[in-house]
This record gives sequence, C-alpha cells and structure tokens, in this order.
Amino acid sequence: MARIVQKYGGSSVRDTDRILSVARRIKQCRDRGDDLIVVVSAMGGVTDRLIALAKEVNPDPNEREMDMLLATGEQQSVALLALALHGLGCPAISFTGAQAGIETDDTHSKARIRSIQPRRIRERLEQGKVVIVAGFQGRGDDDAITTLGRGGSDLTAVALAAALKADLCQIFTDVDGVYTADPRLAPDARKIDRISHDEMLELASLGAKVMQARSIEFAKKFGVDLEVRSSLNDRPGTLITKETKDMEDVVIRGVSADRTEAKLTVTHIPDRPGRAARLFQILAAAAINVDMIVQNVSADGFTDISFTVPRADLDKIRRRLADRIQKEVQAEEILYDERIAKISAVGIGMRSHSGIAARMFTILAERDINIEMIATSEIKISCVIREHAAEHAVRALHTAFGLGRDDRGASDE
Amino acid sequence: MARIVQKYGGSSVRDTDRILSVARRIKQCRDRGDDLIVVVSAMGGVTDRLIALAKEVNPDPNEREMDMLLATGEQQSVALLALALHGLGCPAISFTGAQAGIETDDTHSKARIRSIQPRRIRERLEQGKVVIVAGFQGRGDDDAITTLGRGGSDLTAVALAAALKADLCQIFTDVDGVYTADPRLAPDARKIDRISHDEMLELASLGAKVMQARSIEFAKKFGVDLEVRSSLNDRPGTLITKETKDMEDVVIRGVSADRTEAKLTVTHIPDRPGRAARLFQILAAAAINVDMIVQNVSADGFTDISFTVPRADLDKIRRRLADRIQKEVQAEEILYDERIAKISAVGIGMRSHSGIAARMFTILAERDINIEMIATSEIKISCVIREHAAEHAVRALHTAFGLGRDDRGASDE
Repeated sequence: MARIVQKYGGSSVRDTDRILSVARRIKQCRDRGDDLIVVVSAMGGVTDRLIALAKEVNPDPNEREMDMLLATGEQQSVALLALALHGLGCPAISFTGAQAGIETDDTHSKARIRSIQPRRIRERLEQGKVVIVAGFQGRGDDDAITTLGRGGSDLTAVALAAALKADLCQIFTDVDGVYTADPRLAPDARKIDRISHDEMLELASLGAKVMQARSIEFAKKFGVDLEVRSSLNDRPGTLITKETKDMEDVVIRGVSADRTEAKLTVTHIPDRPGRAARLFQILAAAAINVDMIVQNVSADGFTDISFTVPRADLDKIRRRLADRIQKEVQAEEILYDERIAKISAVGIGMRSHSGIAARMFTILAERDINIEMIATSEIKISCVIREHAAEHAVRALHTAFGLGRDDRGASDE
Repeated sequence: MARIVQKYGGSSVRDTDRILSVARRIKQCRDRGDDLIVVVSAMGGVTDRLIALAKEVNPDPNEREMDMLLATGEQQSVALLALALHGLGCPAISFTGAQAGIETDDTHSKARIRSIQPRRIRERLEQGKVVIVAGFQGRGDDDAITTLGRGGSDLTAVALAAALKADLCQIFTDVDGVYTADPRLAPDARKIDRISHDEMLELASLGAKVMQARSIEFAKKFGVDLEVRSSLNDRPGTLITKETKDMEDVVIRGVSADRTEAKLTVTHIPDRPGRAARLFQILAAAAINVDMIVQNVSADGFTDISFTVPRADLDKIRRRLADRIQKEVQAEEILYDERIAKISAVGIGMRSHSGIAARMFTILAERDINIEMIATSEIKISCVIREHAAEHAVRALHTAFGLGRDDRGASDE
C-alpha cells in the first residue's frame, strides 16, 4: 500500500465527462489499496471566464479580490469530483486550500506556501476517504484567500506530498510526459523515462510547459518523486527523481524554447554605483521575476541594462513602474521587446563533457540565428534569439545533440 | 449618518451590467455618508448551473459537497462587486460568510446561524470601506462551509443588521415591495407601505415569495427594520417594522397563495400512543419542516394522518424515509399529493374584528372551492384547496376583503 498524491489539471476536469473519468481512475487506484490525496485545478476555461468577468467590471482588478474570485474555480471542481466519487461508491471529501491547512504569505495572486497543517487530511485518510484538495490556493493572514499563481496546483500537490511523506506525486496532464523537446517544434522528440530534479528544473524554468519550476524546486528540496503522465491513457509517464550516476551518460537531456518572456532595455543610465540595484529593487518590490540580465560596457559614463521578465508582467511595468524607474534610475528611456524566445539545452551530462556551449553557439551560427543574450549554469545553456527563429533553432539543436527518435535508435533507454 | 445593511438578490447582479449598476447605487449611498454593509447572492442562474453540473456527476449529491459547490456562487459575486466599486473609486472589501464571522451549525444545505463575530466587518467599516459579504453561507464546525438554504442571503443580511445594530436592512429585489396579493393572481393588488413583522411573517410563510419567513422572524426577534424595494428604480418600498396601534385598523393586510407544499397522507395507522410522535420524529430528524397537520377521527382502532411538507423535500421522503415510516409507524400506505395550494388571509386587525374565518369560508364556498385542511393563528387563516383553484380563490378573497386599488379609493394610505 502506497500513499500517493495525484494532481489533475484543468483539461483533465474540463467537463463532467472528464470528471467522471478522473473519478474512475481514482477509484481504481484506491481499490488497489493506496491512500490517495487528489489535488484538482479549476475546470478548463473557468478561470479565463472569471478573469473576463472581472475585466468587464474593472480593467485593473485588485489582486486580493481576484484571488477571492479565482479560488472559486478550484472549489467547484473539488466538490464535483467528490460527488462523482460518491456516485461510484468511493468515500471522498473535498477541502479548500484553507481547509486543507495550506498556509501562505499575503502576496495575493502569487502567494508562497509557509506551512502545511495536514491534521484534517490525515484524519480523513484514516477514515478511509479519498481526500480531494483545491489546488492553487491557500490561507493568508487573517483568513484571507490567496492564490499561488501559475502552476499553483502542481505546487499544492508537491507540498502536500512532502508534508504527508507520500511515496509518489503524480501530475496528470494532457501530455504523456516530459519530452526531449516540444513535439510541436521537433516532431521526432521522444518521451524521457527518467530525469533528475535539476534537469527538469532547468527545462521547466526555460519554458517546457509541463510543470512550473517552483513545484520542481519544492520536490527537489523535500525529495519528492514526481511522475508526469497523461490522464487520457494508462501509459507510464516521466519520473522526475533524485539524480543517479548513470544519468550523466546523456549529455543533453532536452532542448526547450520559452516564448513567455519579454526583453526590456533601460537606456543611458548614469554609470554610478547603486543605479542597477535601484532598478531591480523597484521590480522586486512589485514581485516581478527578472530572469536574464545583461549590462553593456559603459561608454561616456552611461550604460544600458537589458533584462527579461514574464510578458504577463509587462503591462504592470508600463502602467505602474516605468515612470518611477526612469525617474529614480535617471534613465533615458525604456525599450520593450516582446518578440524574443529563449532557447536552452539542458543536461547534467554537461558537467562531465566539455565544449557544449561552443557547440551550441556553432549550431545556431551555422543557421544564421543571432544570439542576443546568453546565460549558463552548470547544467544548462540559454540563448535569447528572435522569436520567429525559435522553431528552427530547437529542431537544429535537437538533431545536432542526437535527441531525436531516429538518432538514438536501439540505444533508447 | 446611518448604518445600513443592503442585500441584493441574484437577479440584481445577474450580469456585469447589473453589477455595475448596483455598484453605482451603493456608491451614491456611501457618498451620502452612510456606513454600508452589502450582502450579495450568486449571480442569477449560477446556482442553477452548478446544481445541474452536480446532477451530471451524481444524481443524489451529498449535502456537504453541495454546500462546498454552491457557496462559490456568492463568493464570485462579492468579489466582482468589490472590483466594480473599486472601479468607481469607492473603497470596498469582500468577505465570504466564514470570513465575515457567520458561524453556523452543521446542518448542511440548511444550516442555522449560531452567532456572528463581526470583528473584521467593524475593522473595515472603521477604515471607511464598504464591506461586501457573501450571502447564504457560513462556517460550521471545523471550518466546514455551510449554506443557509433558500432565502439564506436575506437571513445573512438581517443577522448582520442585528449584530451590527444597523438602522435599516434594505432587501433589494426585482419587485417594488410587498403587495396585498401576488399581482399575477390579483391584477389590482396594491403595494403595502408599512406592515408589521408578524403580518409579513405570516405572508412569507404562506408563500408570498418576497422574503423567507426565517429572515423576518430573525428581524422581529432583534427589532430590525426591513425595507423591501426594487433595485431597478428609486421608489421607496415596503417597510416591515414593529407593530403600531394604527395597523389594526386594516382587518386583512394581504392574501397569499402557496404552491410550494405537498400533502402526504399516511393511512391506516394503529391508533396507539406514540405512533404520530414517531412519524414526526423521523421527519424532524431528516430536517423536514412539516407545516399543517390533520388527524382523522379514529375508526376501528386505525387512523389516517395528513400533513404538508415542502415539495422540494418529497423526493428525499420517497427515497430515504418512506420505507422506515411505513415500518415503524405500521402504516398501510403513504399517499402523495402535489396538486394543492394553501390560500391565506393575514392581518393583525383580525384580533379586534370577529368573524373573519367564517367570512373567508363563505367566500370560498360561494365559488364552489372545496376546503381540504384548515389552520388558523391569531392573525391568519389558511385553507388547503386544489391547486387549480388558487388564482380564483385569491382574487375572490382580495376583492371581498376590500384590498384592491378600486376598492380602497381615497382611503389609500
């Protein structure tokens, strides 16, 4: 008997037929004797509809009230899933994030989990019930309803798996697992059977949309084994687990393209100590995540700073921060560029194989793809390029690093 | 400066245009300097859609999970109304029932309010905010989400008015106030300007659909002045207030028809002590409200008992209770009759005027309307008749008791 946390995303519960099919899958697992905690997202489309309603009454909605509004999506799906399970004769109970003991800070719309008090979940598991928890949400100070931001339901699942010492955390989605590249970009991409937390972390943070980086970080920190798999079939998915020695044999595990970032350039900043710091303080205070940063060599006592941020935050920067940045940093202007893509190659094999960065730059150069920004870590190399070149770049790297189905042939794991 | 609780029903917030128009009304009141607490129902149609979804996954849904599901409707509308107010530059904050401090018992789907802890509401009023509270819901034991059943949002409003010692509780709806009869049945019905809690209580419990009896009882108990008025215009509505001497001058305040009840007859019960008690114990344990009761004269040691219950509970009685009742009460059979109407005449003037019941029976008899059950109180007379005769009966009584527009002429209040 295992204790398993399962998470079903919005597309897996997008209508009542899907909810019933998820319920049947859960019942099967429970009939095998597993302890089940199930985390559910809002039914596909519900969150978007709620956001549209909010914009109709207020184009610039307050985040506390948006959390209040959006948290209802998950609350509806947990109740419906519990009802569907009852209909199959499977004992089940639903909890909101707050009821499940998920305590967060007060950063509305992207709250951080502070702690989990799983008393109620444990009690109900002991009573033999499947416990269904609303993903994406928690309780802030003074009982405020908070949401965890994008990918928040995955985070709920991983955090519960850690708090409840679950054997496995399964993330059910509409893809079969994690691929060596986005199959829409590289049609010969293969499903990866096993991947380390670190590799998955880099792939996630680089735009492989299967899971958000935060959840994988959390899983790594607490040693949670994750399985990403499809809710539409019974095939095993991709296991994201702690690193083992043999994983280094593969130099590049996957290639990704991220088209969710925008590049900002703040020009002609007086090159004096504290100016760059001030710029990023303002962004940090507004809870905007800055990814890559490049500062030009100073000329005539002035410099330009380029950096990337989520495109979703551009509006907020334009409306609320741009004036302040220009004034406090004494910049000439702020340039916005949304037409970029970040292309990355990831693999823990890089540690033991040299020259991977040079090879990547060569592959891109041979295809006339210009590199605008570069960032590297121990196990990944990222390049910002023009957005329209993203697909071409991914295919070229995927083939050149031998990741395709045909390239590997019999050596396929 | 007054402290006012306003309640807006589902039709008043059924789309974002209506929500914006409610927000403008609230802002006007606040600009006059009033302290405002606003209770909102789910957007019109939302609750029905959620019930339909639930039935798709489970035809016999569990009440705890239904509360979890349905409470989201009000949570959405309070958030949207707060956002709409922000858009008008009016400070506002929304609370769920639980956050607003509405503590209930655990009778899911028709919980009773145990107490109200208005700390958060007071704090926010002191900050100058309009406080918006989700109607219809509260917090049961161990943080469970409960709902208060039909008319629950009115109850929320009245209970908050009592707890916060508000000067007035305004119930905004899609009618102009309380009428001497349902205008669809009696086209010459007039709006009543002032009515006592007791009279309104009888009219409500007898099917005048403007407000539920529970809310009026609560208002009476705590001396809350209620105003029922339209959210579509600025005309004053009907004030429901404590009884004054001059109210007795009007013998009959209104006539109502209730078509929400069904008649059950439990036949051939052994006429021994405790049998009737057992019958009504079983119903009470299932939280079913029994209204009128008639027991036939015993014949051969056996008797029949007829009583009325809400039609909405019929299914539950058939499925879950009928077998037990037959067994434990040793009845022959249970007959179900949904084609009844309860016609009532109400007025505190009855106390000082005699012969009203006789007059009512005569009026009905002259129209060949058969009376199947009778119940009376100090200020009302009710008769169960065939449902198809309801309209005819209401018109006849309305005219005969001089309630119509033409009948009163210049003496109109």
